[in-house]
Amino acid sequence: MNRPQPVEQMVEIIKKLPGVGPKMAERLSYHILKMPQSEVNRLIDSIQKGRQSMKYCDVCFNLSETNPCPICSDPSRDKNMLCVVETPQDLLAVSKVKDYRGLYFVLGGALSPLDAIGPDDIRVAQLLKKLKSDKITEIILATDADSKGETTALYLAQLIKPFNIKVTRLGYGLPVGGDIEYADEVTLSRAIAGRKEM
Amino acid sequence: MNRPQPVEQMVEIIKKLPGVGPKMAERLSYHILKMPQSEVNRLIDSIQKGRQSMKYCDVCFNLSETNPCPICSDPSRDKNMLCVVETPQDLLAVSKVKDYRGLYFVLGGALSPLDAIGPDDIRVAQLLKKLKSDKITEIILATDADSKGETTALYLAQLIKPFNIKVTRLGYGLPVGGDIEYADEVTLSRAIAGRKEM
Repeated sequence: MNRPQPVEQMVEIIKKLPGVGPKMAERLSYHILKMPQSEVNRLIDSIQKGRQSMKYCDVCFNLSETNPCPICSDPSRDKNMLCVVETPQDLLAVSKVKDYRGLYFVLGGALSPLDAIGPDDIRVAQLLKKLKSDKITEIILATDADSKGETTALYLAQLIKPFNIKVTRLGYGLPVGGDIEYADEVTLSRAIAGRKEM
Repeated sequence: MNRPQPVEQMVEIIKKLPGVGPKMAERLSYHILKMPQSEVNRLIDSIQKGRQSMKYCDVCFNLSETNPCPICSDPSRDKNMLCVVETPQDLLAVSKVKDYRGLYFVLGGALSPLDAIGPDDIRVAQLLKKLKSDKITEIILATDADSKGETTALYLAQLIKPFNIKVTRLGYGLPVGGDIEYADEVTLSRAIAGRKEM
């Protein structure tokens, strides 16, 4: 016996979500079929409400309930500094660091030739437009420390050079609380290169 | 900055799904916010259609588009044999084994004192009622091989004893294709106890 068609349909669609494999999709589907109707309604409502109320900020492309987003409309922020991140989640993470009081720009992804994601698939043009119109003196490239994030940072750094803007990249090294024993070689070599006098 | 309230709501609800942790729930939420509206509609439709079209079979409590389900309404099936499983997914797995031509009964879970799941939370009463009314000669207890499934099988075996029905449990041993080197001790000891003459 195969899975009944409506379950098959659920599995097929849920399987496409990131990090969800075929087994997990089946488990989730059967769980949803067993859930009380009120819980299913809450799940669907939360998705629909989320979609309706969250919009992209026209200034930084963060996801926010307001446009422009609370950060872009905060007059106390330093408008000369721009922190470039891949996703709204990354922006949230950086925004928890109280020391940074500048603005943000969300690329909406990273360059990835293998996945056929080029500069036109992320907001490179919009970033360059911003650099032309706004008075930015420093850009922090806070893309991920993986190969896609690195590629994106290198690519952007070259594009930004002609604007005479200071471009910085997040520092590499041991994560705080990190164990040297378990650090990989590349991280350790970067940590040594970035050593500080005490 | 914290997550905007509508995203927070999504994360809170998605986090409750089985196997989904807080990080995964955040990732799924932001993914859903980024998906094209047509894909979101397909996701919601598949959930709603699944819920509408799948019902519990009154005979075996399998999830099916029809009631009774295709297995219970198949006249060629051996009505004297009953295979007791925990979930509809387990029923699907066993139903792929062509050798078994009897009927099924879905308990809807397993006994788990630690999670406060007792006999009243699964379909023990319905199973006993069935044993009284139907002419069943053998019951295969196909609950999981974990501690909850074992407890449930032992409990059911005791309850079924007075009915004078043959009760069997799935055989234990090495999974086919399994590597002895990686088999755990308990499985190996069961495999030795269940050894067969060649």
